Amino acid sequence: MTDTHMPRPEFEPATTDYESIVRSSFAQQAVMVTIGAEITDLGPGWIDLQLPWQQPLTQQKGLLHAGVIATVLDSACGYAALSLMPAGSDITTIDFNISLVAPATPGTYQARATVVRRGRTVTFARGEARAASDQSLVASMTATLYRLPPPSTREA
Amino acid sequence: MTDTHMPRPEFEPATTDYESIVRSSFAQQAVMVTIGAEITDLGPGWIDLQLPWQQPLTQQKGLLHAGVIATVLDSACGYAALSLMPAGSDITTIDFNISLVAPATPGTYQARATVVRRGRTVTFARGEARAASDQSLVASMTATLYRLPPPSTREA
Amino acid sequence: MTDTHMPRPEFEPATTDYESIVRSSFAQQAVMVTIGAEITDLGPGWIDLQLPWQQPLTQQKGLLHAGVIATVLDSACGYAALSLMPAGSDITTIDFNISLVAPATPGTYQARATVVRRGRTVTFARGEARAASDQSLVASMTATLYRLPPPSTREA
Amino acid sequence: MTDTHMPRPEFEPATTDYESIVRSSFAQQAVMVTIGAEITDLGPGWIDLQLPWQQPLTQQKGLLHAGVIATVLDSACGYAALSLMPAGSDITTIDFNISLVAPATPGTYQARATVVRRGRTVTFARGEARAASDQSLVASMTATLYRLPPPSTREA
Repeated sequence: MTDTHMPRPEFEPATTDYESIVRSSFAQQAVMVTIGAEITDLGPGWIDLQLPWQQPLTQQKGLLHAGVIATVLDSACGYAALSLMPAGSDITTIDFNISLVAPATPGTYQARATVVRRGRTVTFARGEARAASDQSLVASMTATLYRLPPPSTREA
Repeated sequence: MTDTHMPRPEFEPATTDYESIVRSSFAQQAVMVTIGAEITDLGPGWIDLQLPWQQPLTQQKGLLHAGVIATVLDSACGYAALSLMPAGSDITTIDFNISLVAPATPGTYQARATVVRRGRTVTFARGEARAASDQSLVASMTATLYRLPPPSTREA
Repeated sequence: MTDTHMPRPEFEPATTDYESIVRSSFAQQAVMVTIGAEITDLGPGWIDLQLPWQQPLTQQKGLLHAGVIATVLDSACGYAALSLMPAGSDITTIDFNISLVAPATPGTYQARATVVRRGRTVTFARGEARAASDQSLVASMTATLYRLPPPSTREA
Repeated sequence: MTDTHMPRPEFEPATTDYESIVRSSFAQQAVMVTIGAEITDLGPGWIDLQLPWQQPLTQQKGLLHAGVIATVLDSACGYAALSLMPAGSDITTIDFNISLVAPATPGTYQARATVVRRGRTVTFARGEARAASDQSLVASMTATLYRLPPPSTREA
């Protein structure tokens, strides 16, 4: 099997400011600093994050805890979705599901999320975490995101 | 709606050492220290954890990140399952799904996981995170766990 | 383990017509007739359905196909949610996840769904299918539902 | 966005008989006849099914019921997995999750499933249902499958 990242989708952004909006919100996620996750690239409807294995993030056998991988993939899915939304929107995860397909041994991990379907209110996204060393798949997520419109346009 | 924790199930443990097995493995999960999660109680087929809101674990609006809640619930589901397994077993998560039903504002959270169905190889568990203040539901998880038998009994 | 149905929740319905609204919509689901599913009881925020094993609904080993159980549980979750909504609302499933915990051998199955959290737009529900004979759990579902408001109140 | 089917993976089958094994098992799934699903193509690690909209399979608004789409995608995921297994294996679904991204109006639907990760015991697969008319995505599934080894090799 050709074991490669998901292709980057091609969407029209709703605002030309999408990159600064995503980077600015990401910078406010304190947990991303805590776990050492960083944005490596992004575009309309997709984002790439990077996460190094760190001992303080491990489970009982020294692997990255599934929840830590879920944390990175959930943020990735959220920002892939936010990148397509009108300025002033905010985003929240309704639910996600994650398959842990291989153990996350020490090394660096790449997480890519792409929007599967953009909606006015509900957006579906998919994320994958891969080992930087050989691009092998470690985990796969499907997330459902909810858009909170800009406060000024919300119903009373 | 009576908004209360899931009832504790009644299972026969496979070993009388289940409590020390679970506590010892939990103590080896470095990420539990990192996020400040602790065991508050446990029995055969269930476990209660506690997690305080902490600023370094937040997303862009100061709420606990969904992935952090997933981390606690995933460990809870795993240890609920491990508590029913023969000594020497190890446990890994195959997949989980989480619904984020309410924002996790500052405060303390209680996570309970219970085994839904115990299997020789595959165990299903369910976890819920609730606000300690009013027991309101914050998130709900379904997890599928895989038992790794003791090394001596594994197939070559 | 006490292996019993989920408790029926206590919600205030948004309309006193909830029962006829649910029964009328259910009667329009042609697939419920096709698979032989029927409402056995319902209240605000919950519903009980019944489904007999039938050979035309089986997989390769003569068990009820997982998708058929999912069909019944998805309808159950949807109607549990609809029972709490204002008159004129319609409901659609955003996503669901199902765990197949035991094989569905010939016999009758009971499906109960209850609302976990009612929202203005997004509702979370949970469903369980059990064997009528011994109440043993066969499958468990978590569903996320979306409310379509009455057409007259929808945004242009 | 280029809205196309998932690429077919390249796996080595465990037996050269994989195609007849899959077709023979599929032919025994009575529910596939009931809903009118057929195999259109298959290879090692993937399968394509086809399903026509039919009124007896609809929900309250005349759309294909989500559970029917789940039925087709679950079979597709199972057979994608079975195609990679040693002769004599059987397969059962542990759990699946499905996102309903667009309404399934009258027309023909194509379902493709591909194996995401093949395991000795647990296999992960992904399925997508698309409208035959314009290839637009209708639903997306992630399934976790369990391999039952040939009876002769099973533990007592």
